[in-house]
Amino acid sequence: MNNDLVRPGERVDDLQFMNLRIIQSPDAFRFGMDAVLLADFARVRKNSRVCDLGTGTGILPLLLYGRENSITCDAVEIQPDAAERAGRSMALNGLADVLTVHTGDLRDIRHILPHAAYQLVICNPPYSPAHASLPSPKTPLRTARQEGDCTLDDVARAAAWLLAYHGHLALMLPAARLADALATLRAHRLEPKRLRLVHARADRPARLALIEAMLDAHPGLAVDPPLIAQNPDGSDTDEIKRIYHI
Amino acid sequence: MNNDLVRPGERVDDLQFMNLRIIQSPDAFRFGMDAVLLADFARVRKNSRVCDLGTGTGILPLLLYGRENSITCDAVEIQPDAAERAGRSMALNGLADVLTVHTGDLRDIRHILPHAAYQLVICNPPYSPAHASLPSPKTPLRTARQEGDCTLDDVARAAAWLLAYHGHLALMLPAARLADALATLRAHRLEPKRLRLVHARADRPARLALIEAMLDAHPGLAVDPPLIAQNPDGSDTDEIKRIYHI
Repeated sequence: MNNDLVRPGERVDDLQFMNLRIIQSPDAFRFGMDAVLLADFARVRKNSRVCDLGTGTGILPLLLYGRENSITCDAVEIQPDAAERAGRSMALNGLADVLTVHTGDLRDIRHILPHAAYQLVICNPPYSPAHASLPSPKTPLRTARQEGDCTLDDVARAAAWLLAYHGHLALMLPAARLADALATLRAHRLEPKRLRLVHARADRPARLALIEAMLDAHPGLAVDPPLIAQNPDGSDTDEIKRIYHI
Repeated sequence: MNNDLVRPGERVDDLQFMNLRIIQSPDAFRFGMDAVLLADFARVRKNSRVCDLGTGTGILPLLLYGRENSITCDAVEIQPDAAERAGRSMALNGLADVLTVHTGDLRDIRHILPHAAYQLVICNPPYSPAHASLPSPKTPLRTARQEGDCTLDDVARAAAWLLAYHGHLALMLPAARLADALATLRAHRLEPKRLRLVHARADRPARLALIEAMLDAHPGLAVDPPLIAQNPDGSDTDEIKRIYHI
């Protein structure tokens, strides 16, 4: 391991998957279960050119690469510290040439990445509309969890600009925002084509929604079987074990 | 039983629920599982004034009355034969004064029923956009299963006109049309507030979507636990048994 890439106070987590590792800072936003579920939900085709909007730690490019190592990925992150750290994670895995991190604002995507060049755009966007909850005092956490820096509309606009004809956007958000999300995607020519709802248990309301949209596709939505996290006795379901490689 | 109300060729089915019976014609559209699931999904408050758009056999008013017998219901049906037969079903149950069937086109709702007067509008609408599949040769079946006579947009417009402030619309449609439905509802000030997806089995895609929208509500959707029809061994789930009173 190239320890020159790790700074004081940071830690290196083994993803327990394809020998991939990630650098995380305890002070900044760390990746959670959401990213792992989204990486499983997205369809990653061979040799795809992928873009991750708001990459944070860089977890999504790493997990997608672990699934399909013929991809290349451009990741965009607005926070310079996080972008720099994510870039070092790619280097730590020897992947700096295929998984590239760009510091920038996705609202300015036209000046960062090429038009109509990506088969897959992926995004685990902020969670609530701006001002819907109290801002978190630490800037890195606030950017990763609220829409102060970008909205669903910004994400959809950027994805529509990046995607090649019939390219896909995969994103995850709270189930409560499903109606917002479907309307916003359509407004940007991104037709919702697949939906999967995540429930903690089979008898609980859905917490998260995984959505796949296709640029300029015909209407018609496939709703996948529900993703249930726990059995009635509280143990992990077989599907969660599969997704986590446990 | 008042057999004067039943015509030659018709049959009377016992709903196995609150002693309610329904007259059906083998040549016309008969109610199916969908109506029973929708009647269970809808929230029926005491003393509600309810409207059923496209009532067909009249099954939904009867099932809702069975759940909450303080309601009154105005049902609208475009096909005169079906409307007349549904009216006789209400009379057969001694409910002609509380469940009223109106022959008319829901696109003409302003001339049939009063504005802003209903707490609940319910609709099990036609299933595919006009011309999306071949028309069925028999007119009654065609009207009940295709959008030749009305569209989701027509249903939403009629519901928005009928509902009192913060009144609810409950409807069911194929899961594939979920994105269409959410967008259409919003376009008519009907904010989607609750969604339940119906799966034949837990590991199968969703077949049907049950949606509750509220007039002039704030955004925010609750996604109920999935409704699973069968256990892995093919037997009915406990919830289906509860809904069907078996």
